[in-house]
Amino acid sequence: MTIEKWDRLTNVPLFILSVLFLAAYSWQILKGTYLTACFVIINVVWAIYGIDYLVSLFLAPDKWKWFKQNLILLVTLILPVFRPLRLLRFVAMLQIFNRSTGSATRGRITMYATCAVTLLIYVGALAEYSAEHTAPGATITSFPLALWWAFVTVTTVGYGDVCPVTPEGRCVAVGLMMTGIALIGIVSAMISSWIIDQVDARSSVQAAKTQQ
Amino acid sequence: MTIEKWDRLTNVPLFILSVLFLAAYSWQILKGTYLTACFVIINVVWAIYGIDYLVSLFLAPDKWKWFKQNLILLVTLILPVFRPLRLLRFVAMLQIFNRSTGSATRGRITMYATCAVTLLIYVGALAEYSAEHTAPGATITSFPLALWWAFVTVTTVGYGDVCPVTPEGRCVAVGLMMTGIALIGIVSAMISSWIIDQVDARSSVQAAKTQQ
Amino acid sequence: MTIEKWDRLTNVPLFILSVLFLAAYSWQILKGTYLTACFVIINVVWAIYGIDYLVSLFLAPDKWKWFKQNLILLVTLILPVFRPLRLLRFVAMLQIFNRSTGSATRGRITMYATCAVTLLIYVGALAEYSAEHTAPGATITSFPLALWWAFVTVTTVGYGDVCPVTPEGRCVAVGLMMTGIALIGIVSAMISSWIIDQVDARSSVQAAKTQQ
Amino acid sequence: MTIEKWDRLTNVPLFILSVLFLAAYSWQILKGTYLTACFVIINVVWAIYGIDYLVSLFLAPDKWKWFKQNLILLVTLILPVFRPLRLLRFVAMLQIFNRSTGSATRGRITMYATCAVTLLIYVGALAEYSAEHTAPGATITSFPLALWWAFVTVTTVGYGDVCPVTPEGRCVAVGLMMTGIALIGIVSAMISSWIIDQVDARSSVQAAKTQQ
Ligand SMILES: [K+]
Ligand SMILES: [K+]
Repeated sequence: MTIEKWDRLTNVPLFILSVLFLAAYSWQILKGTYLTACFVIINVVWAIYGIDYLVSLFLAPDKWKWFKQNLILLVTLILPVFRPLRLLRFVAMLQIFNRSTGSATRGRITMYATCAVTLLIYVGALAEYSAEHTAPGATITSFPLALWWAFVTVTTVGYGDVCPVTPEGRCVAVGLMMTGIALIGIVSAMISSWIIDQVDARSSVQAAKTQQ
Repeated sequence: MTIEKWDRLTNVPLFILSVLFLAAYSWQILKGTYLTACFVIINVVWAIYGIDYLVSLFLAPDKWKWFKQNLILLVTLILPVFRPLRLLRFVAMLQIFNRSTGSATRGRITMYATCAVTLLIYVGALAEYSAEHTAPGATITSFPLALWWAFVTVTTVGYGDVCPVTPEGRCVAVGLMMTGIALIGIVSAMISSWIIDQVDARSSVQAAKTQQ
Repeated sequence: MTIEKWDRLTNVPLFILSVLFLAAYSWQILKGTYLTACFVIINVVWAIYGIDYLVSLFLAPDKWKWFKQNLILLVTLILPVFRPLRLLRFVAMLQIFNRSTGSATRGRITMYATCAVTLLIYVGALAEYSAEHTAPGATITSFPLALWWAFVTVTTVGYGDVCPVTPEGRCVAVGLMMTGIALIGIVSAMISSWIIDQVDARSSVQAAKTQQ
Repeated sequence: MTIEKWDRLTNVPLFILSVLFLAAYSWQILKGTYLTACFVIINVVWAIYGIDYLVSLFLAPDKWKWFKQNLILLVTLILPVFRPLRLLRFVAMLQIFNRSTGSATRGRITMYATCAVTLLIYVGALAEYSAEHTAPGATITSFPLALWWAFVTVTTVGYGDVCPVTPEGRCVAVGLMMTGIALIGIVSAMISSWIIDQVDARSSVQAAKTQQ
């Protein structure tokens, strides 16, 4: 069996497991009930991720190259805080926009970035709420407040009406700030690419008119 | 009757109705008098919007395609908070800058973006004032303060001297923050496109000189 | 006499007058002494600006076109708050960087932008200090604090430890915030243009190597 | 001996000395023990830097040109606060990414920028902590807080929960804010360049398909 075939076979089940993982992770933090069930789901999914990692590594023709190319996968496997980010891998599966060439590439990148940022805001708010809400002197004391804080942070507005006070919460915050810088970069780049296309298209039309 | 003809016929009346809508919406929030008159104007304009939507859908050759392309129109129709944004559609009508090709495209985008951001700041400040000024513990207690807050938010400066405390106010804030990210993106892209043109123009001049 | 000749003749004297103007404007706000002398200098320079404007308009071959192209000049003439910005016109005179084509254009734009932003920060801090330092509840109570506030605002960081409370101060703040957005845009665009050149240069080198 | 040979010979020893310098500088501020040893290391390294500067200037074929091109080197030599930034010079030595042309250039710039920003955040936090922690009314009273403040500043989020109050601390802050603007610019430019490549690649693929 090749690694491509394994990937194709496991893609949908792993995506469903990731959604299940995120649901259990969210429930555990937001509701705080059925903790054993959540714990089981989270760890079973995590174990399956580990098996998938080992099988993929075994099936790869050049194991060392695959290992280097999938370092991030290993990181999301080892560090619990990054596990929900596995879902980002499946965003690429959704291919909706498929019109002309230039706009198709931009459409796909826009969609991927939107899904990724939305997911990062949600997971960031969850992790922040989990880290902060019981800390002494905390201002992020509810999940809606954590969501509000995540939006304020990711857009780099940073009012400072609520902000993290624990070391864990501040690490999550740094992650969201970097997402914010990336977001500004992606939006700028996307509009740049679009404007360059527009200016070129107009120039071509004008040139065609002049030639007639 | 074709949809293009309908569009051409209804463009100016719908623009005037949109201005009337914004005036009634502003008056209702800022003055709080003639509430019945404002209510009538807002709802009549809304009903006319609905009729225009249905007629356009009926006239469209490919109804499903038109429906997909005008989803945003449906959103501005259904959600009251987005209705003032209908005015953005008419900004495209104003075509002032018409010099050379590259700068003409940039000129039109600049003008459109400036009008759109100005309108969004104004409508955002209105909606924010409406949502916040009666809330307990609110800091945005007057329309000038709401305007100041809108500028601070849209430029992503975010001093935090005044900031929203109600869920509705925070939703409006998230909208303005996103506008801010888009604004940074547009300004970056515009200057990028202009600089690339400048560098190319200089290179051409230099090349021409060298060839002589 | 043509308008080009008039421009060439008046360029240096007007630049010196602008520096004098800025000195008098700064002295008046920061020291508050010799107010009559400052008042005289400011108004005499302003009158000379007005005469220059009228003479230029008289000498222009197409008066209406010149008027449209120099609307900003008229604005800096009429509104006192924009008068120090006249100095921006003279930044273009300093032409230092003159190496290769692409980098020369970027060099000139970088230098112009640096001078413009520095001048805007200084004038913004001056105007802010002038508007705020006597207001009740003001936090910007000294010129160093106003400078600190100007840097915090122009980089869109916006700590909020000091921020304007008067309507005039807030107008100046909005101006500096917009300068900040423009600054981010210029820096992004400049680095974009530079990176595109780098990637192209490397590609050419690589292509040349491959062809051999 | 040529200047290229001198550079090649001194590169590794100077890099090691720079790391030693940063270690002594950090130890001095963070631990406050072995102050004499730190003082000796810092000043010996500084003296060696000075000797390297003079030897390089002596070996340069065109001394005046070398002097102009290495003004920043002189600045890092004279102003103590900029000395740790010497390490930036050695980041260029690490050349890891070397795949295709376009992505290789971007890879190298990304790596350089990441190292530079990381170093600037660390050194900025050190300098900030050193300047602030004993000031009356200071909020940046520990090194972790200074690091948190540095991240909040460099991403231009600026919560304002901790912010500098001393003139020195504010100068360091302005430096970090400018780093932040540059960071946004680099990220935007990098993603722009990448997207333009992606769109071009897709267009080529599409064009090839159409021709068949
Ligand atoms: K901010
Ligand atoms: K802020």
